[in-house]
Amino acid sequence: MSATSAAPALSPAGTRVFQQLVRSGDASRTALARDTGLTPGAITRAVRPLLEAGLLLETGDRASTDGALGRPATMVTVQAGAHQVIGVKVTADELFGVVCDLRCRVLDEATVPVGGHGPEAITDLIVGLVDRLRTGRPEVGSVGLAVSGDVDAATGHVGYSPFLGWRDVPLGTEVARRTGLATTVENDVRALLTGERWYGVGRGISSLALVTVGTGIGCALLVNGQVVHGGFGVAGEVGHVLVDPEGPLCHCGNRGCVEAIAGSAGILERMGQAGFKGLGIGDVAELARSGQPDAVRVLAEAGRAVGTGIATIANLVGAEHIVITGEAIGSSPSDTADDEQDYDVMDPHVRSAFEQRAFGSAARAAIELRPLRFVDWARGAAACAVEDFVTHYGRS
Amino acid sequence: MSATSAAPALSPAGTRVFQQLVRSGDASRTALARDTGLTPGAITRAVRPLLEAGLLLETGDRASTDGALGRPATMVTVQAGAHQVIGVKVTADELFGVVCDLRCRVLDEATVPVGGHGPEAITDLIVGLVDRLRTGRPEVGSVGLAVSGDVDAATGHVGYSPFLGWRDVPLGTEVARRTGLATTVENDVRALLTGERWYGVGRGISSLALVTVGTGIGCALLVNGQVVHGGFGVAGEVGHVLVDPEGPLCHCGNRGCVEAIAGSAGILERMGQAGFKGLGIGDVAELARSGQPDAVRVLAEAGRAVGTGIATIANLVGAEHIVITGEAIGSSPSDTADDEQDYDVMDPHVRSAFEQRAFGSAARAAIELRPLRFVDWARGAAACAVEDFVTHYGRS
Ligand SMILES: [Zn+2]
Ligand SMILES: [Zn+2]
Repeated sequence: MSATSAAPALSPAGTRVFQQLVRSGDASRTALARDTGLTPGAITRAVRPLLEAGLLLETGDRASTDGALGRPATMVTVQAGAHQVIGVKVTADELFGVVCDLRCRVLDEATVPVGGHGPEAITDLIVGLVDRLRTGRPEVGSVGLAVSGDVDAATGHVGYSPFLGWRDVPLGTEVARRTGLATTVENDVRALLTGERWYGVGRGISSLALVTVGTGIGCALLVNGQVVHGGFGVAGEVGHVLVDPEGPLCHCGNRGCVEAIAGSAGILERMGQAGFKGLGIGDVAELARSGQPDAVRVLAEAGRAVGTGIATIANLVGAEHIVITGEAIGSSPSDTADDEQDYDVMDPHVRSAFEQRAFGSAARAAIELRPLRFVDWARGAAACAVEDFVTHYGRS
Repeated sequence: MSATSAAPALSPAGTRVFQQLVRSGDASRTALARDTGLTPGAITRAVRPLLEAGLLLETGDRASTDGALGRPATMVTVQAGAHQVIGVKVTADELFGVVCDLRCRVLDEATVPVGGHGPEAITDLIVGLVDRLRTGRPEVGSVGLAVSGDVDAATGHVGYSPFLGWRDVPLGTEVARRTGLATTVENDVRALLTGERWYGVGRGISSLALVTVGTGIGCALLVNGQVVHGGFGVAGEVGHVLVDPEGPLCHCGNRGCVEAIAGSAGILERMGQAGFKGLGIGDVAELARSGQPDAVRVLAEAGRAVGTGIATIANLVGAEHIVITGEAIGSSPSDTADDEQDYDVMDPHVRSAFEQRAFGSAARAAIELRPLRFVDWARGAAACAVEDFVTHYGRS
């Protein structure tokens, strides 16, 4: 969803070239022609509106010549600072905002604490954060928002966000109206995937899974180079992969789902059953590290459940790289050195269960347990805004 | 892999247009321009070699005019019979062959019984079947072969086919050499998916799962309109989805995989443990239908395991349509009325387990249990040959 500013008309070929350039930074006209099936001349015509708008720059490349035509090869380069975007990750405690250029390099960042969770309060905070970050930056032209839950990226509506207690909030429309900036809203895990895909571990691979372990187990999948949205809006529900039919009850009605075993609530509940009431996830990890047997057992089971879940992903879609992050893995909003504290406790159990259940070559997937850094999520939101800007540039 | 015949050079745009036309049958030049981003004139230039080769036909459409240019809209139609393909499904008992046109309509079919399973014997039979089917059909220009196991479609090599006992057989090269026809080899389940995708239940949907239940549990996935091959060549391994950690041992080393519970060997082994030795899958279904409690229980468990497996697929990739077929579902090579005999026994258990474990809207996937008809598989092999012909036409 976007509040588009006037832009010169761009042909579909121009859009394809723009997308490719924003992802790669630059390319020769010859390479663009090869990848799009257009002639070099047609490439030039297709991107003319982008050159005129200052979003691309054409330069002769002295290092090489186009042999076939006997004239200097021309490089086309993205003017990444010419359009800037603000990305915001909305959490229950804080908003994390970044300003990025078209290549999703972070130019500035800021956070703001969250009080009430009502849509009006959060929208006010977002608008305030955007105004603060765009001050002195006339190049800022769009906003990306990452919100957990059921988000319709096409309309900018948040259908349901359990975390915030929202139902059917037209967040994109409202932020666009109040800021005058094109606004994109995306599910936070898919936003993070979008960032990783273009500018992170997903570069150059076509199959990537991103799993977040916390209150819920979230997952976004890249398959054949495309984000999986699911035929009916459901995809990546690794939280409800079966681990143990005799296991704890899951909110989905089944027993022994990954989420019932490895989600924060399940971990704390089983610690409570063992006599440890009122703990946080960090406390459980600390107990485990000190050798307390219940904490060791509960986190080992959680790690093995996550490992079984990601093995199932690898077996079904053949992910090349699997990133696991989230509060139960190790993190804090403030990104201190303590962030990685829980990481070491689950890690070996995740890996051993993965290795045990990954079938054949699926076991070759790279498994990365990564502390949660909200700035990465804000950058993912910015990446979604860039994608929307590029895709819709010059379209009505 | 193909032994290409000489064809005039086709631009990448020409290939894209050819692909689209073969899948849709025909399209207006205006629609092709819209979908490819080329001008109508560029479309005409791009497809000229295909018009000259008689593979496409351009016709004025009297029913409409292109308003913008004030001239009659031009339809481009595939001349589907101009290039014909032979598809062969290789089984341990028989070869099933079909002749198809470019739209994968079956023009003729034939079967031949299989004696020995050695690569030479099977290759001889394939070549004989191809020669028989191409007699009187000078339009036949390529062959597609569907073989179970680990197949490298790019080279036509069969890496490993447990069913046939083959390792590293250069089947594509050999059949191409002996027939003089471009030859494509594909894993049989992926071939079936290719046929369904273009000409079957997959038309117009972007997410499809095809699960075969037999000695092994096979699966091919279409996600975002693309076949999933997996980063390391593994994908769709629904057979090793965990159903019960206390369940029977699987050949993968784990306990309670779908395949250990629902594969033919597992079913027959558990019937054997209950005192029923030497049965076939059809016998077990017959016993279940007559109310024999062990057979009822074993097939119910098998059906529930398959249902759990397909729910996992739906939860992870959001499949819109899931087809389940195979010998354990109900079939015979000769496609008699008895084919569907096992179908009714597993059906309710597959569906109830699916409904229980599918998360939210993922449960909306259409579940179709279908008898195994080898002619569908042969047609899938033909579809792969068509895809290869179209993709590589006019390329070196
Ligand atoms: Zn669940
Ligand atoms: Zn297994």
